[in-house]
Amino acid sequence: MFERIAIVGVGLIGGSIARAAARTWPAVEITCVEAGEGIEAVAGAELVVLAAPVLANIARLTELPPHLAPGAIVTDVSSTKRLIAAAAAAIPGLNFIGGHPMAGSADGGAGNARADLFDRRPWILTPTAGHTDALQRLEAFVIALGGVPHIMAAELHDRFVAAVSHLPQLTASALMHVAGSLAGDAGLEIAGAGLHDTTRLAASAPGIWKDIAATNHDLLRDAIDTLVAALQEMRDTLETGDGIDSVFTSAARWKEALDRSHRG
Amino acid sequence: MFERIAIVGVGLIGGSIARAAARTWPAVEITCVEAGEGIEAVAGAELVVLAAPVLANIARLTELPPHLAPGAIVTDVSSTKRLIAAAAAAIPGLNFIGGHPMAGSADGGAGNARADLFDRRPWILTPTAGHTDALQRLEAFVIALGGVPHIMAAELHDRFVAAVSHLPQLTASALMHVAGSLAGDAGLEIAGAGLHDTTRLAASAPGIWKDIAATNHDLLRDAIDTLVAALQEMRDTLETGDGIDSVFTSAARWKEALDRSHRG
Repeated sequence: MFERIAIVGVGLIGGSIARAAARTWPAVEITCVEAGEGIEAVAGAELVVLAAPVLANIARLTELPPHLAPGAIVTDVSSTKRLIAAAAAAIPGLNFIGGHPMAGSADGGAGNARADLFDRRPWILTPTAGHTDALQRLEAFVIALGGVPHIMAAELHDRFVAAVSHLPQLTASALMHVAGSLAGDAGLEIAGAGLHDTTRLAASAPGIWKDIAATNHDLLRDAIDTLVAALQEMRDTLETGDGIDSVFTSAARWKEALDRSHRG
Repeated sequence: MFERIAIVGVGLIGGSIARAAARTWPAVEITCVEAGEGIEAVAGAELVVLAAPVLANIARLTELPPHLAPGAIVTDVSSTKRLIAAAAAAIPGLNFIGGHPMAGSADGGAGNARADLFDRRPWILTPTAGHTDALQRLEAFVIALGGVPHIMAAELHDRFVAAVSHLPQLTASALMHVAGSLAGDAGLEIAGAGLHDTTRLAASAPGIWKDIAATNHDLLRDAIDTLVAALQEMRDTLETGDGIDSVFTSAARWKEALDRSHRG
């Protein structure tokens, strides 16, 4: 596989890639480049993984070219893929394939890194045409780390995650903000498991989500508009329940599809 | 305590009250009145519990007076409290104290009834002035069944549950509807734990929620408007992240308050 790997940005994901690679290939040589450290340490690596938040990855990407070994493959783990793909396309001769492991944890940071973080989790790869050999090597790498490669265009990835990841995060935070503001401590005290589940994500800090939203703002804006329309449909017919009828019926069907897709 | 109890409407909550009462007082006489059965069976009961959905409870309430034993206390378990309180106030001499055990389960129905359903869960009581003796007996009843009485006005109850129960349910259903519609099966396949948690409630059927929304439409409409405003604030500043900053910061604080209130 790869004998020398460089990981640029060592948080939960970067650290877990290092651990999973060391678990799979005890002899692999892994170079970690922390934020603020010089990028020249990637010299000699056959695979470079950009594992910081998306805007930092894009900045790192532009520093890479003079230091890359001939034939080196560059990938990343950013939560959005169109912007970094465009930045990579602007660098002549760069062998870049975008990636996004759909794995995470409420507790981030390298201290929580785990070799099994990617086991059986989707790992999206967004190649541009003409990198077939590099793509095959990267796919094999993902599988060896325990992940399940899903290959799709950067545009489709960004559309999917706007709906199934970014919108749920913004919704959970908005809901917790509103429920707390309206009910106060005394109201939260009588809340049941429903509010807990629905706001599990609301402990997230804004930092990384500002990057994600900024680099996916058009698709996320569409997703928010669609959610607001569904809320308005129910809001405008609370007395008759017509909106609740149609939204709940659709929701229950999709919930079943979601549960089914993660059972098999 | 009470030697004869009538439970009108026997689903998860009514069935669990029957089991919890039988666990606590093996000699208690419990009469169950199913939907469609004659209300005259409540004759002789010292406590009548209306345990159907809210609109059915209100209909039953109006049938009660000719059959009630002298001094009988009437309570209910409806998810909203203002409308049934108003209906009770219109019946001269009725000894009614509204109630709402904040307990439930994804799997409803009498078949899932459990004696421990109310253990350590809040059980809200919404007395109107002047029922002090009845209120004390009902509080003792709730405590004996394992619940924790919270006494508040019907109006405050309805305001609290609009924020911490009704809004989360409508939001979870709207989110699942939108995420499924936008991402489809292929998009749901790459979803992580976040979407699962946030949409846990989205399997709910519309029926009971139409009743709840209809009887709390004014406060629920305000809550939806506040949520939509928070979503719009983030939507209009996705490039800068200003809205995300303020909503996420508030949300994380309230999330901590929510977790804290359920730890003690």
